[in-house]
Amino acid sequence: MNRLPLTEVLSRRHHQVRVELMRLGLDALLVTAPANIRYLSNHVGTAGTLVLTHEGAHLLVDFRYQESVRALQSSPSACPGLTLWPVPASYDEALVAMLAQASTIRLLGIEAAHLTVARKEWLERTVAARGLAITLRSTERVVEQARILKSESEIATLEDAAARLAPVADAAFAAIRAGTTEREVAAAIESALRRAGYDRPAFDTIVASGPNGALPHYRAGARILENGDLVVLDFGGVLDGYCSDLTRTVSVGAPTAGARRLHDAVRDAQRAAIEAVKPGVPATSVDAAARQLLESRGLGEAFGHGTGHGLGLDIHEEPRIGPPRPDAPSVQLEPGMVFTIEPGAYLPGLGGVRIEDDVLVTEQGCKVLTSVPRELLVLG
Amino acid sequence: MNRLPLTEVLSRRHHQVRVELMRLGLDALLVTAPANIRYLSNHVGTAGTLVLTHEGAHLLVDFRYQESVRALQSSPSACPGLTLWPVPASYDEALVAMLAQASTIRLLGIEAAHLTVARKEWLERTVAARGLAITLRSTERVVEQARILKSESEIATLEDAAARLAPVADAAFAAIRAGTTEREVAAAIESALRRAGYDRPAFDTIVASGPNGALPHYRAGARILENGDLVVLDFGGVLDGYCSDLTRTVSVGAPTAGARRLHDAVRDAQRAAIEAVKPGVPATSVDAAARQLLESRGLGEAFGHGTGHGLGLDIHEEPRIGPPRPDAPSVQLEPGMVFTIEPGAYLPGLGGVRIEDDVLVTEQGCKVLTSVPRELLVLG
Repeated sequence: MNRLPLTEVLSRRHHQVRVELMRLGLDALLVTAPANIRYLSNHVGTAGTLVLTHEGAHLLVDFRYQESVRALQSSPSACPGLTLWPVPASYDEALVAMLAQASTIRLLGIEAAHLTVARKEWLERTVAARGLAITLRSTERVVEQARILKSESEIATLEDAAARLAPVADAAFAAIRAGTTEREVAAAIESALRRAGYDRPAFDTIVASGPNGALPHYRAGARILENGDLVVLDFGGVLDGYCSDLTRTVSVGAPTAGARRLHDAVRDAQRAAIEAVKPGVPATSVDAAARQLLESRGLGEAFGHGTGHGLGLDIHEEPRIGPPRPDAPSVQLEPGMVFTIEPGAYLPGLGGVRIEDDVLVTEQGCKVLTSVPRELLVLG
Repeated sequence: MNRLPLTEVLSRRHHQVRVELMRLGLDALLVTAPANIRYLSNHVGTAGTLVLTHEGAHLLVDFRYQESVRALQSSPSACPGLTLWPVPASYDEALVAMLAQASTIRLLGIEAAHLTVARKEWLERTVAARGLAITLRSTERVVEQARILKSESEIATLEDAAARLAPVADAAFAAIRAGTTEREVAAAIESALRRAGYDRPAFDTIVASGPNGALPHYRAGARILENGDLVVLDFGGVLDGYCSDLTRTVSVGAPTAGARRLHDAVRDAQRAAIEAVKPGVPATSVDAAARQLLESRGLGEAFGHGTGHGLGLDIHEEPRIGPPRPDAPSVQLEPGMVFTIEPGAYLPGLGGVRIEDDVLVTEQGCKVLTSVPRELLVLG
């Protein structure tokens, strides 16, 4: 399979965003979300501002990144049409100076979901004070909409990122035994993430044992694992900027019959949701498949979150795999979407189970990218 | 020393914020920054919305946190005057419903530096559509201003958080040798952070060896350490919500004379900055002390960032220890402020040095909270 050169991939992304800007009547888009900046420029960094116009792309970076942007621009991943603007001190001062020179911009879209009120108000004030006839206009999801369908090279990276979680899961399982603390298990997982070649953990590792398993966003604490505990293990790594995410729930010593029933119900709900994934289906039906299964086992109330979230440059991105919402039309699944499937059931004071895999929507249906057994492991 | 009960600490914080709201003519403040929510309520979580009025505090949390908030409210750390509002689905929907019931709010301050344009626009639209006469007004630094002076219990936690970095530094030094990768050293550091009792790393660990040391925000990669490398090690942990932050630069095998000179210059600059810390001094003079020392060694251009940042519930908070800025009046140091002192010098293509400690401003001057030798260690 011949992959497109990265510069060509960026050209297509720019084109797609420009078509949307045209539709919205905008001269340019002020891109401030780091993942969106990376998506449109290949610039990797925690800081930067990008303005995409119909003619080119203006990237503003401070001294820390100027060297790496220059190296990028003389590589096969160069961003097409890029002008580099060094930022001597303040990003927003440099932005206004750039806008004063790029005199064709009158209507500038902002990313309303990312830009803060303070930055917008400062920009409006300063642009007016400099006599520039520029109006800021809120946009939503312009770049996010493009990011929802992954390119071949993105899919290859996401597949690699997901596959490397198998040895990390093995290391997590090996660390589980009565007498160890949640934090020690988390340390073993994070060490294994590094060994597996990830740049960094994709989020704070979760090791939630016993009753802590009922707190879905608990991380890892001083609790000592005991025989009979269920332990929720939720971790992931970032590889070349792309995220992976896996959850397994294991038993320390023999599980009670109730614990096994809870695990089986979530496992079956997860399977039902995975089986529901195929092109043309609304994302809400994938959620409904998991939810109905859990309701049929009397666990509807125990499942208080959505079934999954998109994966890519961000650990949570589109598509959302959840129940219908009046304010957000459900996305229809298409080949090239990548997201998690992670139903759970939580019994306050007792414990919880969550099982999560990463899937890719294919022409035929669905490919599971993570490869770790889903049966209840009895460990320690 | 008798510490105030945490409920009393919160009462004082509420009072301080209410005085500021009064000055601004506001009926209430919509608090959306997680660290600010925690500071005013003791609620720990990645989600939540707080509205502080002159009479009480309204905390909105989803199902994940209702149990922990109820436990908090029956503990000695209870938030005074708190009303808990369960969030069934959308936080902003629940907020509008709460505002409709708390009919005394007419002028509602928002945290402009944290609230996104999209959320503000949605709130304005929805409040108007429900016929509520509520006006949103931007505020800046209302809670941040209060957070800049740490309470006794915050200082005790920050001292503990900083002191625990000593064994982590030892583990980092033990992992340094020619032939190992930056990522392996990062894994050793993160594992030691867990063993030291931290909840999690305070930021992505930096292990920048050889030429990578010249990239101030490089993290850790596949580069193999070589004899003669300088290696910048920058790491920290979060303890009970409070951050610590340390940087040391070490040599793999014998350093060149040039590397030693670079290290000595940064060490002297850091010492000069620490000696400049005392009550009544502007934060900019602490920066100037480090900068002048580096300039006197011909390294003014090599020091491209500020000298330090406040530490607390956020890893970067006020006060900023940097050069004067036209738009931001410099803070005067006062006892109870905690921040980093971390000058550096970076030579593109060659390498870099940064040395960082955490300090507390005291009545007498300054207490260094981190305790790791600053001389150039020759390792491996």
